[in-house]
Amino acid sequence: MKRYEKLADEIAALIRSGLLAPGEKVPSVRHASRTYGVSASTVFQAYYLLEDRGLIQARARSGYFVREHAKRPLHEPQQRTGAVQATDVDVSELVFSVLGSLKDPHTVPFGSAFPSPDLFPLPRLARSMAQSVRDMPSHAVIADMTEGNPELRRQIALRYMLSGVRLPLEELVITSGAMEALNLCLQSVTEPGDLVAIESPAFYATLQVLERLKLKAVEIPVHPREGIDLDSLADSLQRLPIKACWFMSSLQNPLGASMSDAKKAALYELLQRHQVPLIEDDVYAELHYGAQPPKPVKSSDREGLVMHCGSFSKCLAPGYRVGWVAGGRYAQRIAWLKLMTTISPSVPAQAALADYLQHGGYDRHLRKLRHQLESQQGSMLASAARHFPADTRVTRPSGGYFLWFEFSERVDALQLFRLALAQGISLAPGPIFSATRGFGHCARLNHGHPWNAGNEQAMATLGRIIASF
Amino acid sequence: MKRYEKLADEIAALIRSGLLAPGEKVPSVRHASRTYGVSASTVFQAYYLLEDRGLIQARARSGYFVREHAKRPLHEPQQRTGAVQATDVDVSELVFSVLGSLKDPHTVPFGSAFPSPDLFPLPRLARSMAQSVRDMPSHAVIADMTEGNPELRRQIALRYMLSGVRLPLEELVITSGAMEALNLCLQSVTEPGDLVAIESPAFYATLQVLERLKLKAVEIPVHPREGIDLDSLADSLQRLPIKACWFMSSLQNPLGASMSDAKKAALYELLQRHQVPLIEDDVYAELHYGAQPPKPVKSSDREGLVMHCGSFSKCLAPGYRVGWVAGGRYAQRIAWLKLMTTISPSVPAQAALADYLQHGGYDRHLRKLRHQLESQQGSMLASAARHFPADTRVTRPSGGYFLWFEFSERVDALQLFRLALAQGISLAPGPIFSATRGFGHCARLNHGHPWNAGNEQAMATLGRIIASF
Repeated sequence: MKRYEKLADEIAALIRSGLLAPGEKVPSVRHASRTYGVSASTVFQAYYLLEDRGLIQARARSGYFVREHAKRPLHEPQQRTGAVQATDVDVSELVFSVLGSLKDPHTVPFGSAFPSPDLFPLPRLARSMAQSVRDMPSHAVIADMTEGNPELRRQIALRYMLSGVRLPLEELVITSGAMEALNLCLQSVTEPGDLVAIESPAFYATLQVLERLKLKAVEIPVHPREGIDLDSLADSLQRLPIKACWFMSSLQNPLGASMSDAKKAALYELLQRHQVPLIEDDVYAELHYGAQPPKPVKSSDREGLVMHCGSFSKCLAPGYRVGWVAGGRYAQRIAWLKLMTTISPSVPAQAALADYLQHGGYDRHLRKLRHQLESQQGSMLASAARHFPADTRVTRPSGGYFLWFEFSERVDALQLFRLALAQGISLAPGPIFSATRGFGHCARLNHGHPWNAGNEQAMATLGRIIASF
Repeated sequence: MKRYEKLADEIAALIRSGLLAPGEKVPSVRHASRTYGVSASTVFQAYYLLEDRGLIQARARSGYFVREHAKRPLHEPQQRTGAVQATDVDVSELVFSVLGSLKDPHTVPFGSAFPSPDLFPLPRLARSMAQSVRDMPSHAVIADMTEGNPELRRQIALRYMLSGVRLPLEELVITSGAMEALNLCLQSVTEPGDLVAIESPAFYATLQVLERLKLKAVEIPVHPREGIDLDSLADSLQRLPIKACWFMSSLQNPLGASMSDAKKAALYELLQRHQVPLIEDDVYAELHYGAQPPKPVKSSDREGLVMHCGSFSKCLAPGYRVGWVAGGRYAQRIAWLKLMTTISPSVPAQAALADYLQHGGYDRHLRKLRHQLESQQGSMLASAARHFPADTRVTRPSGGYFLWFEFSERVDALQLFRLALAQGISLAPGPIFSATRGFGHCARLNHGHPWNAGNEQAMATLGRIIASF
């Protein structure tokens, strides 16, 4: 991590926390150079980077200012509290009716789970695909099914190593996307009827998988910025026979919360004490806005208690359906379950990704993607501040492409969803993120699509509907 | 189906049944022309075809003879009988230890589940892949995940139609290979603890899936040529609360049995009477040796009671991991389960197959593949007759690439497996095909690889090991 990147991240944190408010002037180059003890050119480089990330903008002859989101920026949502209990899960029909609404390509896709496909290097991937299927030795189409493409395994292990996680190659199981990995992890450590701790709000697919496997949910509150409430988790682990935890420790979906390194270490200690395995869903890891990737809980794992799940679907190659899990002590069992479920992810897709990771310029693509997403986040935040009622609360995650809105208690998110859809706008209503159908006045909005006049207009329409409640 | 193909199939049936024995002269062209009431040129065409299929050979100035397998051809195995009971399944470790043995590329792959990858049009598929990823509109990588590639769905539905099965397009769910389809079908109609009727012997993955889903197996005996024992099934349906049947009605693995059309219709009536759904595993359908494809039970389905599962893995594109199910009344539930399990099979793999099915010459490839497999079957049968003890029994399926051997009761198939592996030869021992660990003196051998001196020598080695018991 270069000096100017570090400086940019420090200033970005000040902006994100609100200490440097929208419209405010950022310190002059001379001032910053003195404060941080770096050269003027380092400050310049940092400011260029922040401009590129959409956080600050230059005004002629006046220096740099924090990008103006609104006169009154929106506040952060508050963390839920309350007693935690085990719940049967029954959300699938609701979730599918919401997902079904996304089919129409003319709908404004604020409800989508994916960024715009135009943000991915699909032509370059197509070249990697063409080349690797042409050069593939015929025996590989069968041989690579059992353990996966060896070069892909090596490339994934290498990325773990570069981000400071030591991992024996044998722990890696290549899967048909992270969704299969998460399913297999859960099956490897639970029986029907068991209790699983999940986040509240949680990614709706988590709830669906629990429902499918007849597991009970123990919903642990998540702070919108700091992640899982450890006290609540500790209490639940004490009281309830929890068999596994399924958490997103970085860029949690839908809140975008990222736990600090210290908190991640504390989480690991807690789970280790109870010998409860952690399924760490880390599919947004590569979409951090700062220069430094967040470290997973897996990096503390000394006992193989953490199953760390990743994927290329959100950051490189949606539709290729290639993910993986670093399965710790459960790796062998996960690999066997995989052979009994789908046998293998597509061998050509694996080969294409292996080629791309070696020759395609993955890190260059990721840098560009992160800047685009961060800049689009700024656009949506600014638009929300313009069009949504002043009592609206919203997250401001340091990565990914989701914002979580908390509206006035009067707003019925499911009704909002239906009214918005009638106007050609999709969104993900709060109740699909909870087994207990909480978050009835919340919604997740996707800013993964290049900002345009249509989006701006859709935000204005949403604002009118919200105000009408 | 052309006249000469029909004639060829009639004579092939006589050879397969043993009425026309190895070494015997087939009727002269003039004689056959009179008997069957066809022109001499039709007979010539039929004989050329049979020669190509490896069933007869010409001798100079003497006419055509049934290809010589042995002085004494081996007999057909006998059907098991005995009381049928529900059994817990616990075979996975044994199966995985057998499958693990296949990793070494220098092993003679008689134990493999796949034909040789060299029998597939991989370079042509690679062209379809290169073209379709290059031309794919970017929105398709995300949009095609939910319902699958529309052109692939259309091509699959078309093939059903051409083989006489009427199918609403909505019944089709594209899956990550047939293995996922079968898993999802079973989950859509059972709960843990339920009873499922399967075949005995059964494809070992069937047993593994039952084990994984905590279902109990009711093993119905299979006749080596005629398939499922319907009386036994009727009795079991009467006595036991069976929730679903999972059968391969054509080219059953491992026996190669194919039920007649009449028997398939009777099976459907029986299941309809009990309102028990059928999961029809039909992944070898395209590998029939005759000109006419066997009709699935699905073709009788008037109530949506049959879930018909197919795949490209055994006949076109192993490793691409694309299969499907025509799910009848369960289609919606299966589609939902798929979205909660793997979301979607690889989108590029689907697009490549859609392109190949339109432009690649699939039927030409299949004709060639079938002739190769039939001819290799003849070679393995001949080799077995030369090298295996005379009391060995063997199947002679009308398609696919497996032979099922029944050895003297003295032979311990697991011991045979270990001894053979020590000599660099893999095979699939009988006990992995049964929840009750039956078939202890049986084995499945794969003839899906072009016959060569190494195979011949491996058969001789196996023969010596078998005789040593």
